[in-house]
Amino acid sequence: MEKTSFETLLDRYNVFFLDSYGVIKNHGGLIEGMDRTIQRIIDLGKRYVVLTNDASRNQEQLAESYHKLGLYNVKPEDFVSSGMMAKNFLQAKIKQGIVTYLGTDNASLYISEAGREAVSISKLQPENYHEVSAMVFLDDEGFDWNIDINKTLNLLRFHNIPVIVANTDMIYPKSNREINMAAGSVSRLLENILGRSFIKFGKPDSQMFMYGFDIVNKYQITAKSDILMVGDTLHTDILGGNKFGLATALALTGNTSETEAAFLIRSSNIIPDYLCDSAGIG
Amino acid sequence: MEKTSFETLLDRYNVFFLDSYGVIKNHGGLIEGMDRTIQRIIDLGKRYVVLTNDASRNQEQLAESYHKLGLYNVKPEDFVSSGMMAKNFLQAKIKQGIVTYLGTDNASLYISEAGREAVSISKLQPENYHEVSAMVFLDDEGFDWNIDINKTLNLLRFHNIPVIVANTDMIYPKSNREINMAAGSVSRLLENILGRSFIKFGKPDSQMFMYGFDIVNKYQITAKSDILMVGDTLHTDILGGNKFGLATALALTGNTSETEAAFLIRSSNIIPDYLCDSAGIG
Amino acid sequence: MEKTSFETLLDRYNVFFLDSYGVIKNHGGLIEGMDRTIQRIIDLGKRYVVLTNDASRNQEQLAESYHKLGLYNVKPEDFVSSGMMAKNFLQAKIKQGIVTYLGTDNASLYISEAGREAVSISKLQPENYHEVSAMVFLDDEGFDWNIDINKTLNLLRFHNIPVIVANTDMIYPKSNREINMAAGSVSRLLENILGRSFIKFGKPDSQMFMYGFDIVNKYQITAKSDILMVGDTLHTDILGGNKFGLATALALTGNTSETEAAFLIRSSNIIPDYLCDSAGIG
Amino acid sequence: MEKTSFETLLDRYNVFFLDSYGVIKNHGGLIEGMDRTIQRIIDLGKRYVVLTNDASRNQEQLAESYHKLGLYNVKPEDFVSSGMMAKNFLQAKIKQGIVTYLGTDNASLYISEAGREAVSISKLQPENYHEVSAMVFLDDEGFDWNIDINKTLNLLRFHNIPVIVANTDMIYPKSNREINMAAGSVSRLLENILGRSFIKFGKPDSQMFMYGFDIVNKYQITAKSDILMVGDTLHTDILGGNKFGLATALALTGNTSETEAAFLIRSSNIIPDYLCDSAGIG
Repeated sequence: MEKTSFETLLDRYNVFFLDSYGVIKNHGGLIEGMDRTIQRIIDLGKRYVVLTNDASRNQEQLAESYHKLGLYNVKPEDFVSSGMMAKNFLQAKIKQGIVTYLGTDNASLYISEAGREAVSISKLQPENYHEVSAMVFLDDEGFDWNIDINKTLNLLRFHNIPVIVANTDMIYPKSNREINMAAGSVSRLLENILGRSFIKFGKPDSQMFMYGFDIVNKYQITAKSDILMVGDTLHTDILGGNKFGLATALALTGNTSETEAAFLIRSSNIIPDYLCDSAGIG
Repeated sequence: MEKTSFETLLDRYNVFFLDSYGVIKNHGGLIEGMDRTIQRIIDLGKRYVVLTNDASRNQEQLAESYHKLGLYNVKPEDFVSSGMMAKNFLQAKIKQGIVTYLGTDNASLYISEAGREAVSISKLQPENYHEVSAMVFLDDEGFDWNIDINKTLNLLRFHNIPVIVANTDMIYPKSNREINMAAGSVSRLLENILGRSFIKFGKPDSQMFMYGFDIVNKYQITAKSDILMVGDTLHTDILGGNKFGLATALALTGNTSETEAAFLIRSSNIIPDYLCDSAGIG
Repeated sequence: MEKTSFETLLDRYNVFFLDSYGVIKNHGGLIEGMDRTIQRIIDLGKRYVVLTNDASRNQEQLAESYHKLGLYNVKPEDFVSSGMMAKNFLQAKIKQGIVTYLGTDNASLYISEAGREAVSISKLQPENYHEVSAMVFLDDEGFDWNIDINKTLNLLRFHNIPVIVANTDMIYPKSNREINMAAGSVSRLLENILGRSFIKFGKPDSQMFMYGFDIVNKYQITAKSDILMVGDTLHTDILGGNKFGLATALALTGNTSETEAAFLIRSSNIIPDYLCDSAGIG
Repeated sequence: MEKTSFETLLDRYNVFFLDSYGVIKNHGGLIEGMDRTIQRIIDLGKRYVVLTNDASRNQEQLAESYHKLGLYNVKPEDFVSSGMMAKNFLQAKIKQGIVTYLGTDNASLYISEAGREAVSISKLQPENYHEVSAMVFLDDEGFDWNIDINKTLNLLRFHNIPVIVANTDMIYPKSNREINMAAGSVSRLLENILGRSFIKFGKPDSQMFMYGFDIVNKYQITAKSDILMVGDTLHTDILGGNKFGLATALALTGNTSETEAAFLIRSSNIIPDYLCDSAGIG
């Protein structure tokens, strides 16, 4: 598959759905040239939305984290996160009781913003188990893996409540050389043991794409053919974008390395429309 | 879980998303009282949309099949089928070449309506393999299972093309006592052998719900809290409806029998808001 | 991984467990040099056993098929087949009733030799369903895929009987360019739909290795460290041999091509002790 | 399914393969009457072997733990553990280097008895990664779940070494009301993330049955039809026993409760020959 320069794509499309980790930033900070890419989109009067499988921070916190990287133009409403999808679910379907979670205090904002009482699994007392109306996997930090995952297992065995996975990613790059298990690994472990399927939010599911699509259409009527989804992961960004009917570009700055790209595209059969060294421009 | 009479729900909600097979009709024809339910919805000035995992007939053919059952008011635009989602995908993403398929001639309308040339796997010649730009699983009929599934396997091994599953249901009831494998079983078999994940359309994915939501909002602004999803299957209708943020009712007239309902709800952890003997009224 | 000449291995080990399809023969007949390899083993006073995931023919028929290839020295007792494991199971555990099967008449010998009445699914009448005491997947031929697999599905839904998979291979090479689904694909399809795990025989499970080990030990006390397992498939031959504690050699004359070998060893993490172009010698 | 008194079975069979946890003992200590059962077997001049999916203690430690429960007659050689199978594998196949593990110091005896240097993942230094020749999952204790499982993940990503699961059980009962994830859950998590299948030892695989069979045949020639496998778990004890050709009895004193037994037998299709309240006698 031939590579395309991202400058060409900036001309060809009017709206850019950008994955966050692996496209805009990574463990080392901002990805080279992404400040210029975002400025160019703004200068051209075009639009972008950040679509991220992240439930560890709300929109305000996400925007703040971008400001710290020097992307001062990025606003809270430019983000669509899988955590927001989970929050919408809780708002629509969970009308009472405690919502318990695995994750940090920051992440639990998605629950309290949905109007529900959030109690970490770590702090949940067995005598309150019967008050729990839902359980959410938010983040891989903020709890003791051995104690609290076993506690969750025992809670779910006998309490028939909705279980929500707010970030289905299995791993994330912790450094150049190391990866770390993400919330989706923990939820998969419990699905395996319990023999159940939890309710999952995040790419490749259509909801985040639909949400981003609604955002851009509020400003200006936009056809799907005007939108380019840019991601670093075939199974989430590219599969989800393709399925939603968007053009897709795989950027080689994150989960998919240049040496593996051709093989992974062939073996997964998930085919991006474009292959780019980076979404950052010179 | 206590049962609710469907009459109560007809009062409580303004829009009804109805599954077709197992809710409105089954192998024996119209389900008792569903003609009265649909008439009542119309008389009350409310709306319904039929959400069906079906890729064997287009909207016109679906409406016709309902007319034959005596439901003369049902119009083509009242249907949202998984086949339509597949058609939208083909239209947006497949710009050239032959689209080959497993299914009947009727089903192939979804391909030709998307502006692509449809050629059944049965009739596809090896010398044309290189012209094939996509493959679609449409129906469990219209081909030789041994010869044509093996032919599909060999086509997909070496040709890196998008593969679309337009109906992910694994089985359907053929009679009171017998079930039959559906298109989703055939696609799952090939996913297993090839070690790939195909692109799947149909409930529980959000796209059909979003499509139905758009339809009703064209007529009148409708909140998700005004909509009830009615289905007979936990893993498609109820899971999908819950995830989209709708109230959900499980009707015991199809895949889920009264004796199994409590157990299946507990073991799957997919929890409908209501349990009804039937969506048909007296 | 460096390659080893098979001549070296003929010197180093005293007993050779040989896979059949892909090592000794393939769709084109005898693999070049395998007649000389077997003659050399005999001349050196060493031993071999053929370990094959095959339930389509009994030991006599297997030997005959080898005679036709010019391997006149091969005797029925030189074969250990997965069908024999299934036959042992039927003999030990199924004491009465009809045993029904998917496969050819030839394959059904494994059932009748176990002392049970064999009736093909194709010929089984619904009024006899209650007499069926077990079901066996034997071969991918000898039945109508659409009609008879659906018939099997309906039989198994309501009849709580042991289900045996006598060959778990998913595919086999039909020619240089084409593969075909094997009995293991059909059984996997039904396991998926029914949500059950059947009883499976064949490599990589230890039983066939144990059986082969007993055969050679009847003649002469042999340590595991004297035995080399030679196969063309990582997941069956090499995994099974490794797990049983044998040295293993991957021959590149069948399922694993030279170009893929390094990648497949790395991604599967199934590591043969030796890599050989072929087990055939000059 | 009708229940059988275990006294009847003590008369009918000559050799008893007994699962440990859930049949002989549980979290509360000795299961009522099991001291009398074992004494009766001895008094009748019959034999028993304990077949346990356990890699946390070697044979001597297992016998000691039984002595503490008052079963003074039980000897080290009466145990066949999945840890022993893993040890045999290491002995046969891993000729050099460090073997790293997840588990307690006790469990690591299986490695050092195989003649290999055992280093806990917790203590393994990255500069020694290249010296590691195999990795073993031994126990769910003895390490930090978050830190050390992530460390294992990163070790295995780039080092192509055999990975052994010495106990495939997913959970174990920690008390009357609580379960705990076992070593098999941790290994499954990493298999999922890495997309690999590890080498697994323990029931239902045939190796432990074969090993037990060899033990009893050293003393006295015994046919499989003389042996009864007694277990509390369908997927390990009963499936494995059935597959090996033994008669099987499900004891309702552990993982399978009386209320669930009929349902689980039907849904799993794993059918014991006998159902017993307990293997303990009055």
